Amino acid sequence: MIVLFTDFGLAGPYTGQVNAVLHETAPCVPVIQLFADVPAGQPKPAAYLLAAYAAWFPAASILLCVVDPGVGSARRGLIAEADGRLYVGPDNGLFELVLRRAASPSCWEIGWRPPVLSATFHGRDLFAPVAGRLARGEKPAAMASRTAPRGYPDWPDDLPEIVYIDHYGNALTGLRGECLPATARLAAGGRSIPHADTFAAAAPGDAFWYVNSNGLVEIAVNAGRADRICGLAVGSAIEILA
Amino acid sequence: MIVLFTDFGLAGPYTGQVNAVLHETAPCVPVIQLFADVPAGQPKPAAYLLAAYAAWFPAASILLCVVDPGVGSARRGLIAEADGRLYVGPDNGLFELVLRRAASPSCWEIGWRPPVLSATFHGRDLFAPVAGRLARGEKPAAMASRTAPRGYPDWPDDLPEIVYIDHYGNALTGLRGECLPATARLAAGGRSIPHADTFAAAAPGDAFWYVNSNGLVEIAVNAGRADRICGLAVGSAIEILA
Amino acid sequence: MIVLFTDFGLAGPYTGQVNAVLHETAPCVPVIQLFADVPAGQPKPAAYLLAAYAAWFPAASILLCVVDPGVGSARRGLIAEADGRLYVGPDNGLFELVLRRAASPSCWEIGWRPPVLSATFHGRDLFAPVAGRLARGEKPAAMASRTAPRGYPDWPDDLPEIVYIDHYGNALTGLRGECLPATARLAAGGRSIPHADTFAAAAPGDAFWYVNSNGLVEIAVNAGRADRICGLAVGSAIEILA
Repeated sequence: MIVLFTDFGLAGPYTGQVNAVLHETAPCVPVIQLFADVPAGQPKPAAYLLAAYAAWFPAASILLCVVDPGVGSARRGLIAEADGRLYVGPDNGLFELVLRRAASPSCWEIGWRPPVLSATFHGRDLFAPVAGRLARGEKPAAMASRTAPRGYPDWPDDLPEIVYIDHYGNALTGLRGECLPATARLAAGGRSIPHADTFAAAAPGDAFWYVNSNGLVEIAVNAGRADRICGLAVGSAIEILA
Repeated sequence: MIVLFTDFGLAGPYTGQVNAVLHETAPCVPVIQLFADVPAGQPKPAAYLLAAYAAWFPAASILLCVVDPGVGSARRGLIAEADGRLYVGPDNGLFELVLRRAASPSCWEIGWRPPVLSATFHGRDLFAPVAGRLARGEKPAAMASRTAPRGYPDWPDDLPEIVYIDHYGNALTGLRGECLPATARLAAGGRSIPHADTFAAAAPGDAFWYVNSNGLVEIAVNAGRADRICGLAVGSAIEILA
Repeated sequence: MIVLFTDFGLAGPYTGQVNAVLHETAPCVPVIQLFADVPAGQPKPAAYLLAAYAAWFPAASILLCVVDPGVGSARRGLIAEADGRLYVGPDNGLFELVLRRAASPSCWEIGWRPPVLSATFHGRDLFAPVAGRLARGEKPAAMASRTAPRGYPDWPDDLPEIVYIDHYGNALTGLRGECLPATARLAAGGRSIPHADTFAAAAPGDAFWYVNSNGLVEIAVNAGRADRICGLAVGSAIEILA
């Protein structure tokens, strides 16, 4: 299974062209679009989202990850292996948390180049063919050589910021649920937000936090949009009130 | 064929995770995304949309329907059978019109539970595996026991309200076309709206109603957005001027 | 491979129903959604987008193209063959540039009609079954008879206008890259915009133009949205400053 994790947006030709390349390269492998709307051009929040959501997929899944503001510059392309899953994408911190949390991760720099490589769409021209060839059973070493990824040691293990706003207006943080006890409150957008287990356990219009179905602390409002009601956006700081 | 009818939104990880579960459970069954943007958390307008659009799909289709504001509460999960199609989703009225219009409908309460069930994403954890197993040929009785769904007898057979605004700004009502003769006018948003057969039959900028390709009465504007021009949103009342 | 090029929007039931028809008609043929958000109801900018993006797909691809404001009127339905690819859609200029640029194009008027043809959704009822049958190997002549398409000789070979705004706010023009040397500047939205090879080559916040990965001249801003910063929308005029 190939899993797409990108900031391509839902609109436009980008995801479709990547799907066409994957189909041509690995015709029988199913492609699942996980996120097409990771915060555009922001590898740091994306890295926390990726670590939380990739863990849900079975071993041997291949995650094609493209949040690539440096496309066309000297930034490298990577294949990473972590906990049995393979990742393909730029060397810009996107895999920092996945690799940090893995038992014995590996990393390769992609040396393979396609016959034609555009300056601005490596997702289609470089990373998709590599992901397709991995899905067909080729080994990383056939296309890439061992390397250490660029490190981001100053990024925390858990990020007390909003990393994604979903369709319902729920605000996902970069904090894993095990960071905080159910008695903790979160300070965000000028509010003190208590825990609740489910939407139905909060009064309509009330903000609450809970551990979402992928293990991240998420701020929501029963029958309302947390982003608007609490004034939250990607990058908003969250404080834990013990 | 498995058909998705949800309020998950197009963005974010929800549809992708459901697709991943369906692929794992029923690898060879095609999945068609019908609606991902049913009015969020509103089973009533969704029920009228579902009844109109499900009827277009062939017998033996499985409709995975998730508009589930009560997720995590005591609301039940259902399998419904109506006119040869199977439906999976919450017991909150979503199937009310489908069942009411069917010749001899059946209904089961889902007793099966997955090894891990999140409190907030039964679409992925409960309903998708059930839909996948039905698609693989398992019988409802293997996962569920006969029941009567919660009834919503006060919901009318046809709903004189806007139930969906589409991409073009067209406003779909919960009224079936056979409710009104072509000579009827609709009062909506302070206007009196006549019938036309096609977009080209109305003058540019003029609002008209027509019976859409799935049998629902729909308000549109030739070369314009009916929602903005007529001031319509989901829930706006429509009056039939005979 | 069947490629979808439409203005159906991402939301709503249109793409899903077309996919269902394609699956029923040509079960084993992969369907790639290229664009679902071509400027709604505007065949002219769509024609320039289509010519640029279709050329990227392999020969024998079938492009199902629906930008169809005249649906239900007397406008004809076409099958076009150009450079080894097949196109299906309305006769409203959508194929004008594809045909003009092809070596020896052919064109057929679709005579086949489905048992039930709605007045407003020929994409689903007429064009999708025709595309599916072509994908299954049927010949155009089995469903259509030779014709000349309606011509649009006043449309230029390259269109100095914005034809699409993408998810990142980049503004695509209808100009092919070979129209202008890298020393040219573009006048757009009251600015004089220079060339740059990649995003990283421009200063953050600066507008630049480049030839995108499908050969069109595109205006972008490093770490910003060109549409907002330069005041560009579909239809905005572009001037080439030699």
